[in-house]
Amino acid sequence: MNARIFVGERQVDAWPIGNRLASYGDGLFETMRVHRGAVPWWSSHWDRLADGASRLRIGLPGEALVRQAAASLFDDAGDGVLKLLLGRGGAGRGYAPTLSAAPVWMLSRHALPDAVESVSTHWCRTRLSIQPALAGLKHCNRLEQVLARGECEDAGVDEGLMLDTDGNVVSAVAANLFVLCEGRWSTPSVARCGVAGVCRAHLIHLLRAGEATMSTAQVEGADAVFLSNAVRGILPLARLGTRTWSPHRAIVDARRLLAGIHPGFAADACSVGHMATDGGNDQMKRERS
Amino acid sequence: MNARIFVGERQVDAWPIGNRLASYGDGLFETMRVHRGAVPWWSSHWDRLADGASRLRIGLPGEALVRQAAASLFDDAGDGVLKLLLGRGGAGRGYAPTLSAAPVWMLSRHALPDAVESVSTHWCRTRLSIQPALAGLKHCNRLEQVLARGECEDAGVDEGLMLDTDGNVVSAVAANLFVLCEGRWSTPSVARCGVAGVCRAHLIHLLRAGEATMSTAQVEGADAVFLSNAVRGILPLARLGTRTWSPHRAIVDARRLLAGIHPGFAADACSVGHMATDGGNDQMKRERS
Repeated sequence: MNARIFVGERQVDAWPIGNRLASYGDGLFETMRVHRGAVPWWSSHWDRLADGASRLRIGLPGEALVRQAAASLFDDAGDGVLKLLLGRGGAGRGYAPTLSAAPVWMLSRHALPDAVESVSTHWCRTRLSIQPALAGLKHCNRLEQVLARGECEDAGVDEGLMLDTDGNVVSAVAANLFVLCEGRWSTPSVARCGVAGVCRAHLIHLLRAGEATMSTAQVEGADAVFLSNAVRGILPLARLGTRTWSPHRAIVDARRLLAGIHPGFAADACSVGHMATDGGNDQMKRERS
Repeated sequence: MNARIFVGERQVDAWPIGNRLASYGDGLFETMRVHRGAVPWWSSHWDRLADGASRLRIGLPGEALVRQAAASLFDDAGDGVLKLLLGRGGAGRGYAPTLSAAPVWMLSRHALPDAVESVSTHWCRTRLSIQPALAGLKHCNRLEQVLARGECEDAGVDEGLMLDTDGNVVSAVAANLFVLCEGRWSTPSVARCGVAGVCRAHLIHLLRAGEATMSTAQVEGADAVFLSNAVRGILPLARLGTRTWSPHRAIVDARRLLAGIHPGFAADACSVGHMATDGGNDQMKRERS
C-alpha cells in the first residue's frame, strides 16, 4: 500500500506502538475520489473532518501539509481513492484524552473500485445504535459496519441496508440512501446515527432532497432507490430482498447532475447512461401500463 | 513502552500499515493485573477474549504462544498491568472482514496505577448507546468512553458514571458498578451495553450479587457503592456529585473476599482495611443514630 504516516508535522516510518486509533478507534477518516491527481471535493471532506475533530477535540494537522502529502501520492495525475485517517495523539492505555497531543494521521492511495451498473441489497440484521454524540461523524468506531458487511458477504449481496435500534432506516453499510416517492427524493436523517456523507450533502442540494425519518415500507414502496458515496457516486438499487427495481430516468438525471459537479463521475454517468435511459423508458412504460 | 506485536504466530516490528484496529477499532482487548509475574485471572480473561472473538468472527492466536509472550514481558517476576489487544487481520480499507486472515495482536506492559482509598465521581453527560450485538464485549470501539473520560478531566473527578441512552445506569467509564441496598449487592445488567468485566463476574459470585436494571435514584440512595475492574479491584465511591458516602464495612468485607481469590488485591485490602474499618464503624454509628 502506498501510504504516508505522520505524527503532527513529522513523517514517521510506522504507526506509533500505543496509538489510540488501534486501542479505541479514537479518530476520524475521509475517503475521497481522486480524478487526474486532484480531489474535486477536497473542501467538503476537509470541512467535515475539521467539524468532527472539533466535536471530538482531536487536533487537526495543517491543511496545506496534508494537501501536499496527498499530492505526492498522486504525482502521476492518476485516478484513484485517497484515504485520510486522523487519530488522537497520546498514549493508548487509559481513556483520558490528552488534548494537547499532536495527532497521528495517515494518507493512503487505493485503486478505484470496479464500476457497476446497479447493486443488489438486503436488510441487515445488525442494527445501528443511536448515539447523537457521534451521529453524522465519519469516526473510526465501525464494528457495526464490519458485522453488517459480513452479513452481506454471507448472503452474497453487494450491499446491505441498515436500520437503527428503533427500526428506522438509516443508510447502507458504506453509503447513504436516497428514495424517490411521488417525484420527490428524500434521504434518512443522520441526527441520531449514521454518517453525513459528503456526496449525500451535494445530492441533497442538487436534488432538493428532504431529510426524513424513513420506514422499511417507504423504501420498499419507493419508485426508485439509489445509494451514494464520495468514491462511487450514485449506485442504483436493482434489488432489495425480493423487491426489484428497473432502472429509472430520475436516477439517470441525478447521475448527470452529479457528474456536472465532479468530473470523476462524468465517465460513470456516460457509461451507464444508455442502459439507464432504456431502463427509464421501461419504467415509464410500466407506469403507463 | 515494553510491547510485542504479532501477525498470527509471527512477531513483527510494528503495526501493519493498513491494520483494521486503526481503521475501524475492529478488535478486542483485555487489561490484566499481573502479580509477581503471574496473571491470576488469566483463564477468565482468555475465556472472555475467546468468546468475543467468536462473536465477532476474529481469529484467535494460540493461547500457549500468547502466554509465552506475556511471560517474557514479566520475566522479572514484577507486578504491573498486561494489556492484550487483538485485531482482525486483513486490509484496512473496506468494511468486509476477511474471515481467514491471521489476527494482529499486541501485548504490552504497564505500571500499576496508584492505589487510592476511594474515588469521587459524577454523572457523565455522554450516554452509552444500546447495541446488543456488541454488549458485554471489551471491544475497541471506545469513543463513548473517551468522550466521557474527557468530561471527568474537565470536572476534576476521578471517574464518571454512565447511563445508557434510555437513562438506565450501566457502569463507570472504565469500571463496573456495585450498589448495596437493604443488605444486598447488585450491579447493572450489561445485556444491552457496557462491558461484562472479569472482576465483576468474580464479584457477582463472591457477593451473590444480582444483575438488575438500575436508576440514578437507586445509586444515589444506596448504602454503599463501589467500582470494580480487573486492574484496580474494588474502588469505594466517596462522592457522586453532591452525594457522599462514608466508608462502609460491607465494602471492607468485599475487598477481603476479593483478596482471597487474587493475591494482587491482598495488599490493597490490607492497606485500606484500617481506614475502612474505622469508616465502617462510622457508618454503623450513623445507622444507629
